[in-house]
Amino acid sequence: MIIITRPDASEEQIEHIVSRIRSWGLKAEVSRGEMRVVIGVIGPEDKIREKPLAAFPGVESVTPVLKPYKLVCYEFRGTPSQIKVGNVMIGTKEVVIMAGPCSVESEEQITTIARSVQRAGAKILRGGAFKPRTSPYSFQGLGKVGLQLLAEARNLTGMPVITEVMDTKDLELVAGYADCLQVGARNMQNFSLLREVGRAKLPVMLKRGMSATVKDLLMSAEYILSEGNFNVLLCERGIRTFETTTRNTLDLNAVPVLKSETHLPVVVDPTHGVGVRQYIPAMALAAVAAGADSIMVEVHNAPEQAKSDGEQSLLPEALEDLVQRIRTVAEAVGRSV
Amino acid sequence: MIIITRPDASEEQIEHIVSRIRSWGLKAEVSRGEMRVVIGVIGPEDKIREKPLAAFPGVESVTPVLKPYKLVCYEFRGTPSQIKVGNVMIGTKEVVIMAGPCSVESEEQITTIARSVQRAGAKILRGGAFKPRTSPYSFQGLGKVGLQLLAEARNLTGMPVITEVMDTKDLELVAGYADCLQVGARNMQNFSLLREVGRAKLPVMLKRGMSATVKDLLMSAEYILSEGNFNVLLCERGIRTFETTTRNTLDLNAVPVLKSETHLPVVVDPTHGVGVRQYIPAMALAAVAAGADSIMVEVHNAPEQAKSDGEQSLLPEALEDLVQRIRTVAEAVGRSV
Amino acid sequence: MIIITRPDASEEQIEHIVSRIRSWGLKAEVSRGEMRVVIGVIGPEDKIREKPLAAFPGVESVTPVLKPYKLVCYEFRGTPSQIKVGNVMIGTKEVVIMAGPCSVESEEQITTIARSVQRAGAKILRGGAFKPRTSPYSFQGLGKVGLQLLAEARNLTGMPVITEVMDTKDLELVAGYADCLQVGARNMQNFSLLREVGRAKLPVMLKRGMSATVKDLLMSAEYILSEGNFNVLLCERGIRTFETTTRNTLDLNAVPVLKSETHLPVVVDPTHGVGVRQYIPAMALAAVAAGADSIMVEVHNAPEQAKSDGEQSLLPEALEDLVQRIRTVAEAVGRSV
Amino acid sequence: MIIITRPDASEEQIEHIVSRIRSWGLKAEVSRGEMRVVIGVIGPEDKIREKPLAAFPGVESVTPVLKPYKLVCYEFRGTPSQIKVGNVMIGTKEVVIMAGPCSVESEEQITTIARSVQRAGAKILRGGAFKPRTSPYSFQGLGKVGLQLLAEARNLTGMPVITEVMDTKDLELVAGYADCLQVGARNMQNFSLLREVGRAKLPVMLKRGMSATVKDLLMSAEYILSEGNFNVLLCERGIRTFETTTRNTLDLNAVPVLKSETHLPVVVDPTHGVGVRQYIPAMALAAVAAGADSIMVEVHNAPEQAKSDGEQSLLPEALEDLVQRIRTVAEAVGRSV
Repeated sequence: MIIITRPDASEEQIEHIVSRIRSWGLKAEVSRGEMRVVIGVIGPEDKIREKPLAAFPGVESVTPVLKPYKLVCYEFRGTPSQIKVGNVMIGTKEVVIMAGPCSVESEEQITTIARSVQRAGAKILRGGAFKPRTSPYSFQGLGKVGLQLLAEARNLTGMPVITEVMDTKDLELVAGYADCLQVGARNMQNFSLLREVGRAKLPVMLKRGMSATVKDLLMSAEYILSEGNFNVLLCERGIRTFETTTRNTLDLNAVPVLKSETHLPVVVDPTHGVGVRQYIPAMALAAVAAGADSIMVEVHNAPEQAKSDGEQSLLPEALEDLVQRIRTVAEAVGRSV
Repeated sequence: MIIITRPDASEEQIEHIVSRIRSWGLKAEVSRGEMRVVIGVIGPEDKIREKPLAAFPGVESVTPVLKPYKLVCYEFRGTPSQIKVGNVMIGTKEVVIMAGPCSVESEEQITTIARSVQRAGAKILRGGAFKPRTSPYSFQGLGKVGLQLLAEARNLTGMPVITEVMDTKDLELVAGYADCLQVGARNMQNFSLLREVGRAKLPVMLKRGMSATVKDLLMSAEYILSEGNFNVLLCERGIRTFETTTRNTLDLNAVPVLKSETHLPVVVDPTHGVGVRQYIPAMALAAVAAGADSIMVEVHNAPEQAKSDGEQSLLPEALEDLVQRIRTVAEAVGRSV
Repeated sequence: MIIITRPDASEEQIEHIVSRIRSWGLKAEVSRGEMRVVIGVIGPEDKIREKPLAAFPGVESVTPVLKPYKLVCYEFRGTPSQIKVGNVMIGTKEVVIMAGPCSVESEEQITTIARSVQRAGAKILRGGAFKPRTSPYSFQGLGKVGLQLLAEARNLTGMPVITEVMDTKDLELVAGYADCLQVGARNMQNFSLLREVGRAKLPVMLKRGMSATVKDLLMSAEYILSEGNFNVLLCERGIRTFETTTRNTLDLNAVPVLKSETHLPVVVDPTHGVGVRQYIPAMALAAVAAGADSIMVEVHNAPEQAKSDGEQSLLPEALEDLVQRIRTVAEAVGRSV
Repeated sequence: MIIITRPDASEEQIEHIVSRIRSWGLKAEVSRGEMRVVIGVIGPEDKIREKPLAAFPGVESVTPVLKPYKLVCYEFRGTPSQIKVGNVMIGTKEVVIMAGPCSVESEEQITTIARSVQRAGAKILRGGAFKPRTSPYSFQGLGKVGLQLLAEARNLTGMPVITEVMDTKDLELVAGYADCLQVGARNMQNFSLLREVGRAKLPVMLKRGMSATVKDLLMSAEYILSEGNFNVLLCERGIRTFETTTRNTLDLNAVPVLKSETHLPVVVDPTHGVGVRQYIPAMALAAVAAGADSIMVEVHNAPEQAKSDGEQSLLPEALEDLVQRIRTVAEAVGRSV
């Protein structure tokens, strides 16, 4: 930690800070400039981080030297991680397509869509059984029945399934059916849920919260890894900004930043990221060019009848076309689909 | 709902939209302008809202006429609600001060602080037992022991206590000790938790999420009311913007907006809102002038030893001074403390 | 400056940085931690700031020790500045009300409004002659005629006038009529204009840009002061966030931050800050409680006929009521109107 | 326009609105719902837009039906525009690379860089002579000398040059040397400058402001077109969000949105968009995949000595590598370099 003092900090205040740092068994290096004093605090950063250094009189700012996440750090592994979801590996040369409806609505709907996304080239089936909806009056998902239908679709197609878990009390149930647990954007800092999925045996896809920085996302992933589950996928799905022509602002900058900061694979969800059907293909291609390891898109065979997200779901034939284009871009950046 | 079509929408697309609207038992009123067609959809708004109108080909935008929240709407009551927390009423002429430490740390700490905030004029004691921390390596609160210490402090002082519940599985435990349940900013859209606190017998203070609009906050409150619990306090605690001199941007605009949109009382938490000790008093006074019904501030008797939020906690004597100033401003706007 | 190196920075890279720092005549203090090296750069901060330290291989981050603004810094004066606009002093115990229409529209309009805002208690008359409008097809202001009408209104009432200058080529013209020059939010980083108003003999009110941090605002003010004009008022008028129930998000946090960072007086414009007539009074009162030195509000005698901003203009009688309430709050915080 | 009334709007208020609309020679269509009345205003949208409908008592919201920009609208042309900069056409199948230093610093610097970016595949040379700098104490550009050096580099290489004009008073000077005028992000709503460049004979590249929506950008472009200059390039260069790991948040979503909303070509500037050298290539590739017509990057032969933006400038050899990769991605999306 580096402490910078206020221009009006007194000698006594500075001595007080230094003596407290030393009383904690840490080293304090003091450099005096013309206007301000800089105090370097040396010792185990974790121990330092817990001390309320900014609470001391005379302190203007406190800057950490080390990053607060350790297990998710690229340096921890020194090489990108590969995560297995069912029989599909993510984080390899291959860009993996995940597709499916926003919500599981019926047996016919999910099996029809599962078959068509598989035909189009998707490798993992998505579908919501527990749905986080802004309004209590909106369709909330089929719950357990939805999970059973997803499992049927898996049996039929052989595709592993990913579905959201919204609450610790549903975890066991969801884990009984899913191949990959999704923690949604609105639960990205539901720390109880993060700990519990950290103890689960399944891989977890953690979606970035709407107002989460990349660092926040990494800290939330750290919760999961710190419980022993290293099979974590990070998903960029749009942040909230002032722009209103798109539902959210898909932040593709996060892709190279994450690839550099962490060993965990990066998924991009352009569907929620832009929220307007016609812009999704362009953003999916851009995500692949930016370095994403996987693309997740919502697909519905009858968007006009969808119980959620109809306006942003691609038709199966549009997915087919998109996967072709993703393949070409993937190859242009040295990958495959 | 009002549907506006794209300039290139065909007659067939428009007829398709209209016929679908009618097939749902709703009325469609069509006005033709030079460039675009406007279709008014008339009928029960809830029923309309669930239809994926934006998914239809030829649609440019869909604008709701009615608000999506009903029970929290000011018009639902037509008068401001008063909510009782223990023996303290919020939403009256009196501006209620809630104060206490970020975390309960020890018996001595909580009883000392409880006594001093009571002396300063606070009516409700706050203190965290379950703490949502960004890092898994930070102090996570004393849990059940923290709740017991809070209850002791209540016995000692007679002040009702408010404390956070982070997860549905802890709800029963927390409800056994608290007088008011707090749902934190990071859980504002944890819809499972919202439903469960909606079934609890205790009042709930719902904090606005960092990237939640006022409308999102009201929709989350609607979840709680829709389960039968009308004792909800809404708390503004700062939103996330590009500004970095303050920890968050306390959005006082939300105060008059909420007072106009809903009958529920409004609490302002300047501590988390600005996150810098020296700016908290000014923002607390501004919140009262803007119309807040209650002010929540963090207080610690030894900020340099606090296990969390030391840098933004007021000293007990600073609270005493602040309450005096709040009283004067409250009186200036026709209220009291 | 404090340089923190990357964990993979080589010894050669570190030596290269250090030797370059020394070659510029500056001192480099190196502290070695476990993972990273910290290099303190000591010498005149201005000189250091111009060096592209972040461009050196092996550098992870560069943190300044001193603030980049000098003349606007509170410490530069050590006491709040008082700025005279015509015969009205801003920055004293008195909270000064500036009021008037968005645009000057006609002689009758401006004189009627001038008289009524004066009666209500306003001390300075605002009115736009050159209007920055988002659309080229909107009313752009009366230009020179507008300035003449403003000057007439001043003659009639004795109130000094403030009006916007949008371009360096209009500066001489505007300065011939105004008592205070306004630089609008959209021109806050029009550095040519800042330099020119810095050479003008008149006080300048600099409005914060919609995406400007407090630090950006201070840097823009520094441009004006660095040309010799120390008569600068800083105006908070709302920033752009994701919230859409208000036109902008009036950032009152900026008030105590500015009062602590700079000696320049702070004006708050709740009209543009919230942009919804019914919320303006609450925000004006909150601004005064937060410590604003002056409040600027738009007033129109016939909002339904206003050529701009009708929906956010107060009626003269509403201003009268508001000034009464501002007075009470001002007195509660030890000031007057 | 569609007016939605408040639930408490009186019959008199509604009649007043309707009669005023009719008095302006416009049609008013009234639909009565259970809670609110919807009034459609029919007639020339421009005329309607100027009326302060939101200022009328009883009005809750006003929604426009038509877009406020006309000349920049895709429908205005019905086909993408191609803009000629010197001898280089932008908006064709070819993705045009613009490259060069942030600032022109010396004859040697600009000619060395010009030659190397040309060799790497760039078609247009960028370089700043008038520099908008946050601090008055930073290097402000060489001004006229910088323009002369740019012109020399053009003579030497045959590449057209693009450079920024910051103020109306410099326009004639800059236009004497440049092949394309750049209006910077901070001047995107400097409406005086927009009008003047609208009267210039040269093409204009308009950069999106940091807090400008896509609609704001289009409205600013409309200013230029409305003065007769249709040779406008729109440049996405990052918006301001809460994220701090990148300098700005490059908003690639704007690319497909702009391609759908306007006929004007779209340039992406990843250098300012992310502001961190190592992330620029990924974002450049993503921009091409998203559909950008041109990519602008900063290049410096000695970033450690750059007078501005050293930390985000690519080395000439990195540009060479990047152009190869851009070419492959461009071909994958049916374009060329």
